[in-house]
Amino acid sequence: MRALIDATGSLARAASIGTNLVPGIELPVATRAFLAAPDHAAIDADLRWIDASGAHVLTIASEQYPALLATISRAPPVLYVLGDIRVLSSPQLAMVGSRSPTATGRSTASDFAAFFARAGLTITSGLALGIDAASHEGALLANGLTVAVCGCGLDVIYPRQHEPLAARIRERGALVSEFPPRTPPFPGHFPRRNRIISGLSYGTLVVEAAHHSGSLITAQHALEQGREVFAIPGSIHNPLARGCHALIGAGAKLVEGAADVLSELGNFLDPQLLARIAMARADGTGATLKLDKEYEILLDALGFEPASIDVLVSRTGFPTESVASMLLILELQGRIKPRAGGRYGRSRD
Amino acid sequence: MRALIDATGSLARAASIGTNLVPGIELPVATRAFLAAPDHAAIDADLRWIDASGAHVLTIASEQYPALLATISRAPPVLYVLGDIRVLSSPQLAMVGSRSPTATGRSTASDFAAFFARAGLTITSGLALGIDAASHEGALLANGLTVAVCGCGLDVIYPRQHEPLAARIRERGALVSEFPPRTPPFPGHFPRRNRIISGLSYGTLVVEAAHHSGSLITAQHALEQGREVFAIPGSIHNPLARGCHALIGAGAKLVEGAADVLSELGNFLDPQLLARIAMARADGTGATLKLDKEYEILLDALGFEPASIDVLVSRTGFPTESVASMLLILELQGRIKPRAGGRYGRSRD
Repeated sequence: MRALIDATGSLARAASIGTNLVPGIELPVATRAFLAAPDHAAIDADLRWIDASGAHVLTIASEQYPALLATISRAPPVLYVLGDIRVLSSPQLAMVGSRSPTATGRSTASDFAAFFARAGLTITSGLALGIDAASHEGALLANGLTVAVCGCGLDVIYPRQHEPLAARIRERGALVSEFPPRTPPFPGHFPRRNRIISGLSYGTLVVEAAHHSGSLITAQHALEQGREVFAIPGSIHNPLARGCHALIGAGAKLVEGAADVLSELGNFLDPQLLARIAMARADGTGATLKLDKEYEILLDALGFEPASIDVLVSRTGFPTESVASMLLILELQGRIKPRAGGRYGRSRD
Repeated sequence: MRALIDATGSLARAASIGTNLVPGIELPVATRAFLAAPDHAAIDADLRWIDASGAHVLTIASEQYPALLATISRAPPVLYVLGDIRVLSSPQLAMVGSRSPTATGRSTASDFAAFFARAGLTITSGLALGIDAASHEGALLANGLTVAVCGCGLDVIYPRQHEPLAARIRERGALVSEFPPRTPPFPGHFPRRNRIISGLSYGTLVVEAAHHSGSLITAQHALEQGREVFAIPGSIHNPLARGCHALIGAGAKLVEGAADVLSELGNFLDPQLLARIAMARADGTGATLKLDKEYEILLDALGFEPASIDVLVSRTGFPTESVASMLLILELQGRIKPRAGGRYGRSRD
């Protein structure tokens, strides 16, 4: 498809070659058959769905097609998108893992995703049960951005019980698929979908994964695409740590805390934020770190009952973004902890 | 000391230089003072203890001094040994870790040590509480060999509650120290003692260790001595996994199972045993592996009640060593499991 676009000069010309042969381009039989006699009924149905659903269609020829994804081999020629297409070009971290994680794995995924989201990274995953869902949820809890890459048409949300989650992701990010509407979630689609998850992202973090599981395919894609791969270790008695251990043995970065990932992806983040993270980390527990005046005001505003960002913004008068990044630093320093409902409380120690 | 022996030609001549200067050799003030006026009362007391305890004194000039230890920088010029000095030259794996491990860490240390001991490795550790003791115990449970390197004189067992363990180690291996009798267990002796633990061994396995803990000093010595370093990962919520994760991040081999270590140390083990281990591992669960006739006889002899090696030897008529190595293979294949009291039972699955 990409070669055909290059050879003909545009997507429109590529789509209208009909039965003509293009020198140097050898197309699959099914593609030739479709271009010779397009299924206009199907195209019309797709156009009606696109119109009704408000979906965007991004071709690889579009300026809005995500640049990072365009660089991978076998980049999808067309992306269907529900939500904000600009999010596809924001700095992303992929988080993937088991569909049936441990309770600890699930909360680690959610906590880490919230942390990354507050640090300005978009969390990209696959809308699957387990680690995928926990990662999307974590980003949403932190009022962050998240992208779900689907293995079926965007009119078919899979699994069905994630329809409410998908609706929230559409509001705070985007649902993406290379498959046209009405494409069912065939098992073979998911390994293929994984190259898009890693391809959109600067790095892929595997939270919990069994040996020989699908998450390792995503990590493999990330490696082949020259992206970072991170993995969280676990007990040798936890079968869901096996996949992560295999990745670490093969060179993936061992991640104990979310901050380990941030320092590796530093080039893509706000330098001022990174400097503060580095300072907080060098400081260890942060107990001896002198607080700037604003941090003292924020801690005073926090008091001893957990409070939400909105409450802290109104108490301090600081801009929302400043409060969010200061909370991140205080969390890194161990001075505050995220509580239920997106609130923060002082650490008790 | 080594330079002085080299320069004078023998340990006896080195010890009798008195106030003479040896060209090119600069001795510490305390050493010069001692050589000028040896403390004959202390020497006599040492000799009496050596005689009464049956201790061996190995100098670095001795042929029985362990060859692997002799190659390290700052090898101890003298070793005091209680037990069998030949064990110091057997192939050894060092196992070290936290003095206050988790229950899981403790049983992992014991299980792994038993496994290595059955595979023919001597387990070397530091007689400390926690992982050290569990490692020695595991080797003893498997009727294997074990070496304890002490941070004080061998007439001073530290910690005191390990006196019974020390007595058993002396029977099935050796207690070793570079410190003369009556040397108390000063804290500064332990980091220094650690270079002997790693120096005696082909590799060092760290089971559970906090960040910046003493076990990491042993691992650091192993690295500097050009030996293998192995570490067992754990949950990111387990503070005793931090030290291991730091080692893995710095290049130590991640170990999920005892067999991972055996395959790395393969050069030092019986090639026939290794070939069987490799076969059992390639086979995964071993469910499809055809059993040799002898293995079938052994499994039949095992029946469905756990039995000790001695019982199996008398039931099958096979030599003890064959039974031990066959049990190791069956354990690797998941067909049998070690039970309490050094017995084996069939896996229930």
